[in-house]
Amino acid sequence: MIAPGTGSSGEDSLIARYFRPLATDPGAFDLGDDAAILKALGEDIVVTSDAIVEGVHFLPNDPPDTIAQKALRVNLSDLAAKGASPAGFVLTLALRTADDTWLAPFARGLGADCVGFGCPLLGGDTVSTPGPAMISITAFGRVAPGKMVHRSGAKPGDRIVVTGTIGDAALGLDLLRGGRVAAALAGDPAAREMLVGRYLLPQPRNALARAVRDYAHAAIDVSDGLAGDLAKLCAASGVSAVIDVPGIPLSAAAAAALAAGAVGIEDLVSAGDDYEILCAIPEEGFERFARAADIAGVAVSSIGTVIAQASPPRFLDAQGRDMPLPRLSYSHF
Amino acid sequence: MIAPGTGSSGEDSLIARYFRPLATDPGAFDLGDDAAILKALGEDIVVTSDAIVEGVHFLPNDPPDTIAQKALRVNLSDLAAKGASPAGFVLTLALRTADDTWLAPFARGLGADCVGFGCPLLGGDTVSTPGPAMISITAFGRVAPGKMVHRSGAKPGDRIVVTGTIGDAALGLDLLRGGRVAAALAGDPAAREMLVGRYLLPQPRNALARAVRDYAHAAIDVSDGLAGDLAKLCAASGVSAVIDVPGIPLSAAAAAALAAGAVGIEDLVSAGDDYEILCAIPEEGFERFARAADIAGVAVSSIGTVIAQASPPRFLDAQGRDMPLPRLSYSHF
Repeated sequence: MIAPGTGSSGEDSLIARYFRPLATDPGAFDLGDDAAILKALGEDIVVTSDAIVEGVHFLPNDPPDTIAQKALRVNLSDLAAKGASPAGFVLTLALRTADDTWLAPFARGLGADCVGFGCPLLGGDTVSTPGPAMISITAFGRVAPGKMVHRSGAKPGDRIVVTGTIGDAALGLDLLRGGRVAAALAGDPAAREMLVGRYLLPQPRNALARAVRDYAHAAIDVSDGLAGDLAKLCAASGVSAVIDVPGIPLSAAAAAALAAGAVGIEDLVSAGDDYEILCAIPEEGFERFARAADIAGVAVSSIGTVIAQASPPRFLDAQGRDMPLPRLSYSHF
Repeated sequence: MIAPGTGSSGEDSLIARYFRPLATDPGAFDLGDDAAILKALGEDIVVTSDAIVEGVHFLPNDPPDTIAQKALRVNLSDLAAKGASPAGFVLTLALRTADDTWLAPFARGLGADCVGFGCPLLGGDTVSTPGPAMISITAFGRVAPGKMVHRSGAKPGDRIVVTGTIGDAALGLDLLRGGRVAAALAGDPAAREMLVGRYLLPQPRNALARAVRDYAHAAIDVSDGLAGDLAKLCAASGVSAVIDVPGIPLSAAAAAALAAGAVGIEDLVSAGDDYEILCAIPEEGFERFARAADIAGVAVSSIGTVIAQASPPRFLDAQGRDMPLPRLSYSHF
């Protein structure tokens, strides 16, 4: 547990200096104990964990502030998809060295998101590692008892709805690695910057959590690729879906990369790191859901329909032909 | 979040095969969703996190089952010291490869402790890493509202009480590394086995959690060394303590290593990995606390007294002289 002691050790002083200011919740006890308290308040506590590893989920030279924010936001995205309000998080930070020039912006970025998303640091652990840096976060949300939105629950006839745009983060990563997308967008610095920004800093849709909770039959956050995450939602719900590929929302930059042949649509729908919400909305609730999304300032697109089958979801092109997907999503092993 | 999808990926199938059987709590949804639920039940949720890293907290050749158990038990130890009952945990597992010969015993060891300590797996994340293996656990406990035992709260006149014996795990690690202790205990295989066992497999004192909650003014688990953790408890409570060094409980094996000159008492009291509970018990409650400990089957020793001072705790030898402590405890940075 992160907890400064007598101030004698380096570990204690880095916690006191960088992380105590983020522990604004009374249940964090100023990071001065072995554990934190989450008050019951009569609600269900939603728990989710996601870790990011240097060289796997972020690049060694990514800015420390956005690494911290990404680590928190990938968890906030899960809370949003479950219809929960952020309540706090614990942080495990494994580092080779306690380097102030890295830790200061890391803590500053994290602190900005603690405030921005109303999600204070409750505790955690700092450990040394001889290997790559790793940030593991377990985040907590609150939801009225029994009201968490599940992957299961999608019903035939529901609309498949997705927030934002798909595939941008993967294009941003390709850009940073100097891939084909860089050449295709060489003349458009604004597009390149947008895509890299989408890779560095996910925009979790917590503003939509209440609408998801109120209207969605089922939901999942798109972290491993739209196609794979849709397949998971369908499998959990015991249904299938038909997706209208031309209806999948793309940014202008992604559309340009697609038009230039630098990437295929099948790459975009199986690329990871979107952190959008994919949900099944009953037809009769769709208009109210769309209105709630509009008020929340989150773009939503209806991209298909749930059908009563056990087979994997189908992706149909403009001619109504099945689009082959070489892989559904990213797997670590 | 650990969550198997369509079964298409290696990550999904390892989760389904090894970890789903451990997710016996209904709030884990068979690891089939993006998040778990902790029901409120009107109690406070106690949250604690501890991570262990290959080469830092465990050795690459340590048995996988005890690595898993250590990862969980260091967290259970924190819950015990806070007076909380285990409610579940989330696991982040970072591995170079998904090796069945390692994962099968890892999951088996973890599963045994899930049952043994009544602490089911609720979820987590599996990620690949090019570096050392790392296991990060966030554990949850339940305690009646406002009843968590803090580091602060110790009062002058309280007895300083510690469970079990001190320094064994550090001696066990020294043995595995072929240090001086190995030579000193060359003729005593049973002692060597006991010490190595204490290093590999902490024995968290969850059986004592209720007594700690009912009687302790303050408590901390001894993870970074008795001296350092006592200093933390005293600092948090705004008090000091006087410790009778000859009263510090040692195992016969530790006493033998001490008598042979292979280790000094100052090493034992500043060595890590004891996972005993150190607590401040008011004099008037001590007899009932000791009886409760006896019923729980946990040995407790009264090793000193809280005094009204702001200075660091004093460790007095048999002649009443201050014992110098070159370092209080282990620090990662």
